[in-house]
Amino acid sequence: MDYFQSLKDTVNSAILEYLPNAQIKPTKLHQAMHYSLLNGGKRVRALFVCICAKLFPQNVDPLPAAIAIELIHAYSLIHDDLPAMDDSPTRRGKPSCHVEFDEATAILAGDALLTEAFLVLSNAYKKNPPLALALIGELSLASGSRGMIAGQQEDIDNEGLAISKENLEFIHEHKTARLIQCAIKMGFLCGDYHHIDKHQIKLLGYHLGMAFQYQDDLLDVESNEEILGKPTQSDGQFDKLNAVKVYSVEEAKTRLNDFFQSAEILMDELEVDTTSLQTYVESLRQRKF
Amino acid sequence: MDYFQSLKDTVNSAILEYLPNAQIKPTKLHQAMHYSLLNGGKRVRALFVCICAKLFPQNVDPLPAAIAIELIHAYSLIHDDLPAMDDSPTRRGKPSCHVEFDEATAILAGDALLTEAFLVLSNAYKKNPPLALALIGELSLASGSRGMIAGQQEDIDNEGLAISKENLEFIHEHKTARLIQCAIKMGFLCGDYHHIDKHQIKLLGYHLGMAFQYQDDLLDVESNEEILGKPTQSDGQFDKLNAVKVYSVEEAKTRLNDFFQSAEILMDELEVDTTSLQTYVESLRQRKF
Repeated sequence: MDYFQSLKDTVNSAILEYLPNAQIKPTKLHQAMHYSLLNGGKRVRALFVCICAKLFPQNVDPLPAAIAIELIHAYSLIHDDLPAMDDSPTRRGKPSCHVEFDEATAILAGDALLTEAFLVLSNAYKKNPPLALALIGELSLASGSRGMIAGQQEDIDNEGLAISKENLEFIHEHKTARLIQCAIKMGFLCGDYHHIDKHQIKLLGYHLGMAFQYQDDLLDVESNEEILGKPTQSDGQFDKLNAVKVYSVEEAKTRLNDFFQSAEILMDELEVDTTSLQTYVESLRQRKF
Repeated sequence: MDYFQSLKDTVNSAILEYLPNAQIKPTKLHQAMHYSLLNGGKRVRALFVCICAKLFPQNVDPLPAAIAIELIHAYSLIHDDLPAMDDSPTRRGKPSCHVEFDEATAILAGDALLTEAFLVLSNAYKKNPPLALALIGELSLASGSRGMIAGQQEDIDNEGLAISKENLEFIHEHKTARLIQCAIKMGFLCGDYHHIDKHQIKLLGYHLGMAFQYQDDLLDVESNEEILGKPTQSDGQFDKLNAVKVYSVEEAKTRLNDFFQSAEILMDELEVDTTSLQTYVESLRQRKF
């Protein structure tokens, strides 16, 4: 089996181990958490954590960190889909959490997944408190009001408005790139990374995160509902943000290529063999959804 | 000035120091966080943390832990007030966060306060990673899907239904007592608590938390809107939970006294001088709102 597919399977099994059992009272809450976390995501963030950690022969098990970041990602999708936010009835071709359950449960399941991320990190890395703290610090900063949440707030507040390049950059960087950047950093933290230039790691995460978002935007424009499992150009429907609102499709493709190229140069320059990371990034680059 | 009032003032000043500046982009998000956190709460949880830590001559600064638990409490109030939850237009006599701002901002401000709690703990106790981890572990467990959120979910799911004593106990214990219990534990963690029986600390937190909730329920029945700043018997309006739905007012008062009395016995028995904690609990017992 493909290495990355097998890594993804490992992540999916581990998620089930780390999540509270769905039979724990209140079962509706725990079922909503399971439903949203196990609905077939690509696990890009988790895989970045694992692949980066395994660049180093000596590494601390990155799986709990990978799970924690997926918990954060899953909560953000639940809350983004809420009627007061993007009002999205489906997610990956299935009913959104608030449609499958109800709005109150969706809010609470999101809150619970967010909280659980920090519980997982504090429990799993108990034997290595400095590492645990570093991971918690990175994740809470990247996903908080100066990170991912800032991006979502600006995105919503700019709905239907003409968007500047500066604001587009702010939203893409915060809403998407920060968490992917955090995944890269968390992976390196689990590895023996101390000889590596921290600024390079940060830059690499930024470029990979931006590339991922530009690709999403371009796929959203080009793909159809059947493949994506969500309405095509859903961003366009509500005048929501997409790179092609500011750039032409050609310009956006150029920017996408630039981000990937910068990431490749950075991966080549890092003082560690990044072959597996480069292979994974190349597979992402080829994705059609 | 009264010692507890001065402690509360210290907490309120520290909150401003620890919160991200309200001028940071997105300003609406950060303003909503400030609005909700600085709307005149009693800071019971923060004070429990500080008072318990200061029972010990040797203690680590409990303020950041006190702030973190207030961030969690504030987020839970914002989300509880949302239209999909308790649909409460006011909080402490002022417009709720989603009324003052908007629903999307209220959801995001809640998420951000929740996330910030763990950032504060991981930053402030960086020099003492084992303590930081213990605090993060306690707070995430107490406020997560097996703690506070479980109580809120059950509360909402039982709205309008006949409630059993067992369910009432579950909701009160999870929705309220767990976080107060956590405050007590976090305070002891910041103190030199190792000679104290952990089970006694847990029990004390439980009894104080339950007493606090029963008092709230009874005040809700007895007080009027002007004093409370929220509709009297608001729980009754929507057939929501209140101890007097299961017990008579007299029975509820007896239970309230029992909880306080058990807490007093436990405070007497603890192997540390608990005078200041006892004084604070007595002042809570006398509260009229």
